[in-house]
Amino acid sequence: MQTVTVDLGERSYDIVIGAGLLRSARVHLEPIVRGRRVALVSEAPLAERFLPQLEPSLGAVTNRWDTYLIEGGESAKSFAGVERLLDDLLADGIDRSCVLVAFGGGVVGDVAGFAAALLMRGIELIQVPTTLMSQVDSAVGGKNAINTRQGKNLVGSFLQPRIVLNDVSVLGSLPPAEMRAGYAEVIKYGLLRGEAQFSWLEANAHALLSHDEATLIEAVQMGCETKAAIVSEDELDKGKRALVNLGHTFAHAFEAQGGFGHVPHGAAVAVGLVAASDLSERVGVCGAGLADRIRAHVRSAGLPVDLTDLSGEVQWCASELREHMLHDKKTVGGRINFVLLRHLGDAFVTTDVPSEALDATLHSLGAT
Amino acid sequence: MQTVTVDLGERSYDIVIGAGLLRSARVHLEPIVRGRRVALVSEAPLAERFLPQLEPSLGAVTNRWDTYLIEGGESAKSFAGVERLLDDLLADGIDRSCVLVAFGGGVVGDVAGFAAALLMRGIELIQVPTTLMSQVDSAVGGKNAINTRQGKNLVGSFLQPRIVLNDVSVLGSLPPAEMRAGYAEVIKYGLLRGEAQFSWLEANAHALLSHDEATLIEAVQMGCETKAAIVSEDELDKGKRALVNLGHTFAHAFEAQGGFGHVPHGAAVAVGLVAASDLSERVGVCGAGLADRIRAHVRSAGLPVDLTDLSGEVQWCASELREHMLHDKKTVGGRINFVLLRHLGDAFVTTDVPSEALDATLHSLGAT
Repeated sequence: MQTVTVDLGERSYDIVIGAGLLRSARVHLEPIVRGRRVALVSEAPLAERFLPQLEPSLGAVTNRWDTYLIEGGESAKSFAGVERLLDDLLADGIDRSCVLVAFGGGVVGDVAGFAAALLMRGIELIQVPTTLMSQVDSAVGGKNAINTRQGKNLVGSFLQPRIVLNDVSVLGSLPPAEMRAGYAEVIKYGLLRGEAQFSWLEANAHALLSHDEATLIEAVQMGCETKAAIVSEDELDKGKRALVNLGHTFAHAFEAQGGFGHVPHGAAVAVGLVAASDLSERVGVCGAGLADRIRAHVRSAGLPVDLTDLSGEVQWCASELREHMLHDKKTVGGRINFVLLRHLGDAFVTTDVPSEALDATLHSLGAT
Repeated sequence: MQTVTVDLGERSYDIVIGAGLLRSARVHLEPIVRGRRVALVSEAPLAERFLPQLEPSLGAVTNRWDTYLIEGGESAKSFAGVERLLDDLLADGIDRSCVLVAFGGGVVGDVAGFAAALLMRGIELIQVPTTLMSQVDSAVGGKNAINTRQGKNLVGSFLQPRIVLNDVSVLGSLPPAEMRAGYAEVIKYGLLRGEAQFSWLEANAHALLSHDEATLIEAVQMGCETKAAIVSEDELDKGKRALVNLGHTFAHAFEAQGGFGHVPHGAAVAVGLVAASDLSERVGVCGAGLADRIRAHVRSAGLPVDLTDLSGEVQWCASELREHMLHDKKTVGGRINFVLLRHLGDAFVTTDVPSEALDATLHSLGAT
């Protein structure tokens, strides 16, 4: 079992990473719940399968806990979805002493986290993420969001959880595509972290994707440590936190042009990482060879490395992709924010990218 | 012109109080807006009448500002209302560099403040409140909320504004009932503050309600100073901030039993203040006579002092009112929170009130 602390003064909390953590959650829940009422938010198939593992611990720390099942999928991340959940919670007489547990993947974490943030202006939240992507990324750092007509994650808030419980044993049930999707974010953290971590991923990706628990613990710990350090310096995303967006300016544009829901986020991030390293080489901030090395690792993990890989059905178009980037949430005053790599472990944010270089990168990925 | 600072470290801000401030707003807007795009949220009749006073200042500090009119009234404080505003803002390409100006009464402050808090997890907010109640109370302290099926203000967030501009000249157009409603909150702050301030109100209520600007400035300043000091100590409402709820446990129950919208909030607060002081005497925490003095002042301001005054149409019922108090947002674990007065300037929060005393207070107000 490993523990990573997100250092945020009074709002500091631990991310606990281990195998079989659901069954041994009591020791972690006890000091937070202390007999208070719990509202557990989850989604149906997951709750059916894994809730029995968590139940004895919940039953040991509180007399009253109720389960609220929400729909899965990005469409649940809507105003209507959050309003429905808040209505259900309020109708049951939830008060500000209650603790909300988000038990599921990224969608559950977002919807439940947003509801917890808004309910009486904030009740306490525990994150129990159940996908590789949420364990290593979305459940850490206190961000939550919903989608609107204009795009993904444009409306949301910050609410740091009291604790994050990452049980890697749960990941054993994830389909290969979801493991790979989460692995794209693991690669991102390897790139942000440095040579040692990225080499370790090159050597261990296969074991990780085959659900080897010791390898998973180490990889999730590496990702959480990297993100925790960044979030501790810039909780509210005013500066350095933009680094965790490595590959994401591209990924969001790929998802937007492909049609949200058609192009999976993790796969888009994979191509986005290839794109970011290609662009870094092209504008001359990093030496030759890094982009090839990253592309090779992404491919070896079974993830797409260009736009045709990402989707053969979409007519990828550079000018349209640039348009989407201009409407990205991070774009301010028409200046697109890119995260580029100088070398492994040294990323930086810039708006200073010639449009010819951007076009060349997009064309190299197969856009017309 | 007076300035009150809300001391919250990096999030500190000024409340500026003066006559004719809309026309001279430029000097206050300039250092915040600095050319950035502005979204001004207001309601129709008010914007028509007073926006022309603010326009030259806005035009001087930014090249682009757009007006978004929302409906007035409590019904606008809904998920649908906030979603509509967010949709409009996003459709116009608002990005995180924009500044949102809330120009109106409490409803505008709540809806616009909530939207600013949620838009890309928070954009900057300027409050320009235009009612006595919002100038002295709701626009100060960073709280915003909407209503749900289960009650008022159950869903919301915190977003401290960058500045609050209180132009008391705008209050000259408020109908007498709205002035009195706001004055109920002024009385609350006088009670929280002490003998000198409450005596001053006893001497000056008439001038204030007749829109004397010097008196208004002094009263608004007194209220804002009192609230700012409390908010500085307890921004997130975990303790001391409950004091600004003096009279409100009762008021919310009166509003709930009377039917929201039927019993005006300010009038309910007035009777709530009488109730809180009656209860304080009854449980023996304050000396005899204070409740009579407060009742006399509330009456002299033209505000209701008992439930029949508040509404002759409602069948006021003590046990039903107690039920509503049990469902108040501040009630935790079935323990109703009361703010009681030891003497002027010395209020405290307690859940330790015998139900016989509560019933006696409710009966003394005319409940059966």
